[in-house]
Amino acid sequence: MPTYKAPVNDTVFLLRDVFDYEKYANAPGFSEAPIDVVEAVLSEGAKFVEEVVQPLNRTGDLEGCKRHADGSVTTPKGFKEAYKALVEGGWVGLAGDPKYGGQGLPHFLAVLFEEYQVSANLAFAMYPGLTNGAVAAMMAHASDELKTRFLPKLTTGEWTGTMNLTEPHCGTDLGLIKTKAVPHGDGSYAITGQKIFISAGEHDLADNIIHLVLARIEGAPQGVKGISLFIVPKFLPDADGKPSQSNGVVCGSIEHKMGIHGNVTAVLNYDGAKGWLVGEEHRGLNAMFVMMNGARLGVAVQGLAISEVAYQNAAAYAKDRRQGRSLKGPAEPDKAADLLIVHPDVRRMLLEIRAFNEAARALLVSVALTQEEALTSPDPNVRQAADDRLGLMTPVMKGVFTDCGFMNAVKAQQVLGGHGYIAEWGMEQFVRDARIAMIYEGANGVQALDLVGRKLPKDGGRAVMAFFGEIGQFLAASKADAALAPYRGGLESALGHLQQATLWLSKNGLADPDNAGAASYDYMHLFGLTALAYMWARVVKAALARQAKGDSTPEIDAKLTLARFFNERMAPETGAQFARLTAGAATLMALPAEAF
Amino acid sequence: MPTYKAPVNDTVFLLRDVFDYEKYANAPGFSEAPIDVVEAVLSEGAKFVEEVVQPLNRTGDLEGCKRHADGSVTTPKGFKEAYKALVEGGWVGLAGDPKYGGQGLPHFLAVLFEEYQVSANLAFAMYPGLTNGAVAAMMAHASDELKTRFLPKLTTGEWTGTMNLTEPHCGTDLGLIKTKAVPHGDGSYAITGQKIFISAGEHDLADNIIHLVLARIEGAPQGVKGISLFIVPKFLPDADGKPSQSNGVVCGSIEHKMGIHGNVTAVLNYDGAKGWLVGEEHRGLNAMFVMMNGARLGVAVQGLAISEVAYQNAAAYAKDRRQGRSLKGPAEPDKAADLLIVHPDVRRMLLEIRAFNEAARALLVSVALTQEEALTSPDPNVRQAADDRLGLMTPVMKGVFTDCGFMNAVKAQQVLGGHGYIAEWGMEQFVRDARIAMIYEGANGVQALDLVGRKLPKDGGRAVMAFFGEIGQFLAASKADAALAPYRGGLESALGHLQQATLWLSKNGLADPDNAGAASYDYMHLFGLTALAYMWARVVKAALARQAKGDSTPEIDAKLTLARFFNERMAPETGAQFARLTAGAATLMALPAEAF
Repeated sequence: MPTYKAPVNDTVFLLRDVFDYEKYANAPGFSEAPIDVVEAVLSEGAKFVEEVVQPLNRTGDLEGCKRHADGSVTTPKGFKEAYKALVEGGWVGLAGDPKYGGQGLPHFLAVLFEEYQVSANLAFAMYPGLTNGAVAAMMAHASDELKTRFLPKLTTGEWTGTMNLTEPHCGTDLGLIKTKAVPHGDGSYAITGQKIFISAGEHDLADNIIHLVLARIEGAPQGVKGISLFIVPKFLPDADGKPSQSNGVVCGSIEHKMGIHGNVTAVLNYDGAKGWLVGEEHRGLNAMFVMMNGARLGVAVQGLAISEVAYQNAAAYAKDRRQGRSLKGPAEPDKAADLLIVHPDVRRMLLEIRAFNEAARALLVSVALTQEEALTSPDPNVRQAADDRLGLMTPVMKGVFTDCGFMNAVKAQQVLGGHGYIAEWGMEQFVRDARIAMIYEGANGVQALDLVGRKLPKDGGRAVMAFFGEIGQFLAASKADAALAPYRGGLESALGHLQQATLWLSKNGLADPDNAGAASYDYMHLFGLTALAYMWARVVKAALARQAKGDSTPEIDAKLTLARFFNERMAPETGAQFARLTAGAATLMALPAEAF
Repeated sequence: MPTYKAPVNDTVFLLRDVFDYEKYANAPGFSEAPIDVVEAVLSEGAKFVEEVVQPLNRTGDLEGCKRHADGSVTTPKGFKEAYKALVEGGWVGLAGDPKYGGQGLPHFLAVLFEEYQVSANLAFAMYPGLTNGAVAAMMAHASDELKTRFLPKLTTGEWTGTMNLTEPHCGTDLGLIKTKAVPHGDGSYAITGQKIFISAGEHDLADNIIHLVLARIEGAPQGVKGISLFIVPKFLPDADGKPSQSNGVVCGSIEHKMGIHGNVTAVLNYDGAKGWLVGEEHRGLNAMFVMMNGARLGVAVQGLAISEVAYQNAAAYAKDRRQGRSLKGPAEPDKAADLLIVHPDVRRMLLEIRAFNEAARALLVSVALTQEEALTSPDPNVRQAADDRLGLMTPVMKGVFTDCGFMNAVKAQQVLGGHGYIAEWGMEQFVRDARIAMIYEGANGVQALDLVGRKLPKDGGRAVMAFFGEIGQFLAASKADAALAPYRGGLESALGHLQQATLWLSKNGLADPDNAGAASYDYMHLFGLTALAYMWARVVKAALARQAKGDSTPEIDAKLTLARFFNERMAPETGAQFARLTAGAATLMALPAEAF
């Protein structure tokens, strides 16, 4: 059975040492949470997920969700009790508005806690995760009346939320949505249609489920400009706000899927279900994007989170299992064999995972702080810069963290050899669970197109220029730092490739948009590797400062080795990415469709 | 439900056009099978697996194998009938010795047919695959008496075979084997111990199962030099050769695993089971290596085979599913959306898979022919050169084909978006099934060490020098070929990196063996990419010749585009591989074990 220990120390090191958390001391949003409060909350949260949530991960996978003839769904044993404890502990509403029963802590804290929740149990963490997505969309776009009616229960997690986008014939292409909304004349609508792949779409964890549903109001324009967003509760609340009458939405079936068995994936059939408009008519995608962007960052976190727990279990195995001898001769001649950890190739796999994890966590902390600024800063310039950064990094992190997270789970599984393939060891579940993150909330190819087609050119490239500028400033400011010098190479060469690639794209993408499409996936990964290289340089700087103060730890010391490893063995990939993406679209588009 | 069509045309093109099958017309081993016979056999085999075996792939995965209280195991519905038909069709004994009931066709034909079998159903194909491995080991090492007793039933597949290496405490490190063999004094032994991860270890497909078991004769030397190989039948044959008495080997449990559910993975408990020595005492590894080398090539085939069937289904989906619009504007404005195949990034995924598949199949055909020469050539020089090549390419193909095969299954799954994650579409099964091939028959890190530590230095580097020499000759001989010129770049640069890397290894691996270990995995992949680049150059040459003769097909024309794609987008990886592997071991080995 796998185990898990949340990396609270690392999160706090990143906040305090790398990103100078002190500087936010008086900023709105942050002021409620000085670093010792942050550390205390994360430690409590870590304890909760380690003790209550993680033990349900394997059993939840084995048992899965069961749909009954009446359309109701039972979650795996223990999920209901754990979810109740999560709600009662205030964990769902951690960053929720106190007006609606939330704890009022900063949002970044909820993002960082999300990593631990997912490491412990992805399938379980999706229930509160989707609920918080629904809360965010409603906070941004719903009327006060709807907020008052639904947010108190959603914010605390007593009710849960869902996102209803996909239909059988449309996933990525939401312009094809057919679900209909017919106005009742009293401000409400009758919603009819079929939605598929609805995570947490039906279950027994909460008294009510609030579906956020994209649908087309009768007579609306074709395409994405005719789509509206509706709140459709599973049960209509009565005058006291209690769930009472059933509301014409039924779980028609649930999917049998590769992983996340503990989270139900529902087909939902709406038959004149009562719904209320969120935001403006025909502007539903706009409102849903609030939820989707948060969800995309949340999915990026999933990539990191599974990579982390997979690493911990692979490392433990490598320090316990004896097999073969060190290539240099027996390391422990009195034992029948040496530990796996003596083998360079086993270390390679572990270090590839960890050099990703620690830099990805740094990027996550950085972006979570940026998001907090975007939400709470009184300075419009700060908000704009933060919004820019968030918009730019969301597709990069979603695409790169989930691709790497999956591959890292595969590497961790490989460390266990044959045992990695056997269910009871739990490693193969990490692989199966991690796989979905590359697909949902926009497949990674769609993230790459979002980056190249929308985020790069937006506002004349302001966001990407600011990112390059920040790295340039960091490199210039640390030019004289001799201790940092050995760690700069990876970043300098990655940044060079990324800047050249951006130039190439701006020229060749305009000339032929297929060039942009053909380059997009490698560009996204090149962007991600550069951002991780930048994180390693900043982490090294902070680690060296701690060492200089005589205040280091073995974990902090290890970061210098990990940064070297990243420079030697992970940053070189940017050269191959650059070569591939500048190859252009001609060969890709040469074959006629029937030749495939 | 996935579908499958065996690529017989491609196999025959490779044999005839690329590898000049005609030249073997009078060679022993080949002479029984002129190209039209080869094509007819492959076509018949293709039909059999498409119609009989492939339909059981999804159902076999869903149902899995069931162990009963008495230790017996039931395979999924339909397996028994299909296996009976396979035996009766003579497919198990395709290349078997006619003396023992085999069809006497060349071995290479069985290897090429193996690809189709695995594409259709990996779990099913493992039963005859392991049987043929057992036959090969016995043909090479068993006494005539043992051959006469067991081979007639094994060769035809009426009985099946297994390999029993792994024990709970030892997988890779066979020196740790504890299973004991005590001589009975009559030439037989009593075998006692526990073996785990035994594929096809117990089932209901055949009347008897012949286990090849590694065990330690009482008083044998420690380590790998004290291990012997035994034949241990599930039932002892009576005087008429009929399975009669049970033989002290019981299936104690079966594993619940990530994939290949249709093939049972057994824990086998031997309690004084009667066994007979194969080959010499204490030289069991030697005998088992015959089986393991064949098995490793067979596992390489599995990587290709799953990549091929995954490609076929992803391509079909991309030509059927409509989602979004071409970046250049609607390709089919009268439809609600364009086909997925208009999107460059969807094409990228498909072409990455296919540019691997077709080159990998070329390498497989080349090596299968080489293996035939190693087995049958009357010329000792030819045999030696063929043995060298086979030994060199076996770990490369096992490691690279299975890593790429798995990743290609993941890419193919990605093409289907959310549907790729849902069991009923069958793509996620390909991913789960493909995953085992990276682990069994020696995890891929072990293959990399075998390449770097054994195969490279063997006989003063004779094998690798011959390989470089052959490519050098090809490049020199085709220097003036203007039509080929645009396709040489990838091969030239890959070969350059590989030769430099080999030089680096020969220097630095001697100075510190951990450098060899640290470089091994990237070196193996660099070797594989170079071999694939060489295959593309040879395929292009043959395709151009067909075009020059006015005798091309759309499939052959497509190869020129695929070769360009390989050069532009896959060969550049060799630069990154070279950079990584020359980084050396220092950083890898720097952290103390407890820092992991």
